[in-house]
Amino acid sequence: MTTDHGDVNTPIFMPVGTQATVKTLSPEDLVSIGAEIILSNTYHLFLRPGHELIRDFGGVQKFMAWNRPVLTDSGGFQVFSLAELRKITEEGVTFQSPIDGGAKHLITPEYAIEIQEALGADIIMAFDECTPYPATRDYAEESLERTLRWAKRCAAAKKETGQALFGIVQGGIYPELRRHSAGALVDTGFDGYAIGGLSVGETKPLMYEMIEATVPSLPEDRPRYLMGVGTPEDLVEGVARGIDMFDCVMPTRNARNGTFFTSFGKVAIRNARYERDKQPIDPECGCSTCRNFSRAYLRHLFNASEVLALRLGTIHNLFFYLELMRNIRQSVEQGRFVEFKAEFLAKREQASS
Amino acid sequence: MTTDHGDVNTPIFMPVGTQATVKTLSPEDLVSIGAEIILSNTYHLFLRPGHELIRDFGGVQKFMAWNRPVLTDSGGFQVFSLAELRKITEEGVTFQSPIDGGAKHLITPEYAIEIQEALGADIIMAFDECTPYPATRDYAEESLERTLRWAKRCAAAKKETGQALFGIVQGGIYPELRRHSAGALVDTGFDGYAIGGLSVGETKPLMYEMIEATVPSLPEDRPRYLMGVGTPEDLVEGVARGIDMFDCVMPTRNARNGTFFTSFGKVAIRNARYERDKQPIDPECGCSTCRNFSRAYLRHLFNASEVLALRLGTIHNLFFYLELMRNIRQSVEQGRFVEFKAEFLAKREQASS
Repeated sequence: MTTDHGDVNTPIFMPVGTQATVKTLSPEDLVSIGAEIILSNTYHLFLRPGHELIRDFGGVQKFMAWNRPVLTDSGGFQVFSLAELRKITEEGVTFQSPIDGGAKHLITPEYAIEIQEALGADIIMAFDECTPYPATRDYAEESLERTLRWAKRCAAAKKETGQALFGIVQGGIYPELRRHSAGALVDTGFDGYAIGGLSVGETKPLMYEMIEATVPSLPEDRPRYLMGVGTPEDLVEGVARGIDMFDCVMPTRNARNGTFFTSFGKVAIRNARYERDKQPIDPECGCSTCRNFSRAYLRHLFNASEVLALRLGTIHNLFFYLELMRNIRQSVEQGRFVEFKAEFLAKREQASS
Repeated sequence: MTTDHGDVNTPIFMPVGTQATVKTLSPEDLVSIGAEIILSNTYHLFLRPGHELIRDFGGVQKFMAWNRPVLTDSGGFQVFSLAELRKITEEGVTFQSPIDGGAKHLITPEYAIEIQEALGADIIMAFDECTPYPATRDYAEESLERTLRWAKRCAAAKKETGQALFGIVQGGIYPELRRHSAGALVDTGFDGYAIGGLSVGETKPLMYEMIEATVPSLPEDRPRYLMGVGTPEDLVEGVARGIDMFDCVMPTRNARNGTFFTSFGKVAIRNARYERDKQPIDPECGCSTCRNFSRAYLRHLFNASEVLALRLGTIHNLFFYLELMRNIRQSVEQGRFVEFKAEFLAKREQASS
């Protein structure tokens, strides 16, 4: 993918930088682990510090001193998560802010685009309802149809800013709704297509089935983005099904809880077995945390509530995800992704047994 | 000063790395801001992760992956701060640990040395009582005499480890006790001499008076270390009175509260006036935080409780302190310290008016 802030190799994993910062990391840290694009959250930036302020700084990239591409979500996911605090109408969603004294805000599709144009990300997303799980077929369809009407309004509202606009496929766990959603979005025409509403409680086979139901309806020459997914296995399974882009808080959130991804499964660093362990988190890992620090030292930092622990862990987990994507890309380029996938899954299987 | 982990230029400021980490910073960060030596706390490392564990890792430098010199305090200051939880006898101090379920520990001068030998710092400190302020002359004298007997026991207990052992001058706010303390320590003979028990509540003039009462009794060819001090002004005033080494939590603790030191006084970054401020914390500063980030972005990170804020602030404040010491050293080398001091204090005076 080509953007105003440089090229992005696909398939790619996007670290999540909710509040214009990938938690604990500086832009320099992100460059050092090989991050090419990050995601930031429209909802959070809208509430604080405000999209007008960020526009005034020349966009979120300049505001946070990150010179590479950024994607912003539409804010829909967070607004809908507010549950009791929000109300959906055809016009948009009214919600009460949890941080500025309960002020009421109305986000319409047009306003979601305006906010994202102010934030200035390279890729922006259409305003959608992330259909909850479980949802009846009737609700999934009603929600989906509204999301499709909103998607058209987003496309119509968008100005010539040079930003790419992605549509979001919804439809719950109903393959025919997924196909319908994808087809309708393609008819409207977007720069890329996301698959939303997955990894929200459904089983893995169901999630993979929904991806399989959707991808064939999406054009081959546009990026396909699986939102909010997932585990290392999910990334491999997603690429196998034609996905180009992923984002997920899993590596960063797990890191801050002291749970690390490794080539041999997860490591819960607070475990007493690591008390005197001189090995790095993962002896096979090339990240700066594994090159410099022992499990015992990391365990000590977590036990002592030292914030350095959070950063060192985040560097490791994100490096693990980004390195996995680099390995996937290499195997695709060399025409041996099928073998890579089989080997990878066998190794994970073995590690977890 | 020359140590097994490299040379240290004096006068020097030592960032405080209480729990084998200078809060929020990696060793790489410390190198990038020009830190030459850090202080770590014996008391904290003794309780967690334990000095035997750190010995097993080859010392605190290897444990934390910091390849430059370290100084450990004796643990006395923290033990005595426990107030109700500790009991002083001639033998040593018994205290109840606040972190491991109230276990009782007895720290004797000999044990303080044994612990510090296990921790393996390049410079270790004699076990002392930090005389509280205010203290009667009688108590200050009684405490001081015991500290002197302890200092002798420390010197006698120390093995040939290649570590430097510093004695600590006490004596409260009584010049004749300070002189007596310094003289007695010099008679015993140490590799360096610290001035303890200051910046604990007394006025600045009284603190400076105590330094002046002590320094002439200390040998010119040994480092003089003013413990736990202080403000930027204190560093300049201390050097003017013959001090070679300083440590203080002020720059790091203030940074984590969002208070930054600058060439024009303090900046409280949460202040609303910085909401849209595109300038760096200090336009005259060359640190990586000031080269990359605006006050508005830092304010946003603090308001959003993002831990990156703590690290960026710490980098700035420590850089400010270390840069001040570099400027002091340069002015000393160029024989213009008197002018430097006058200029510096006039500028501070102007900034605070």
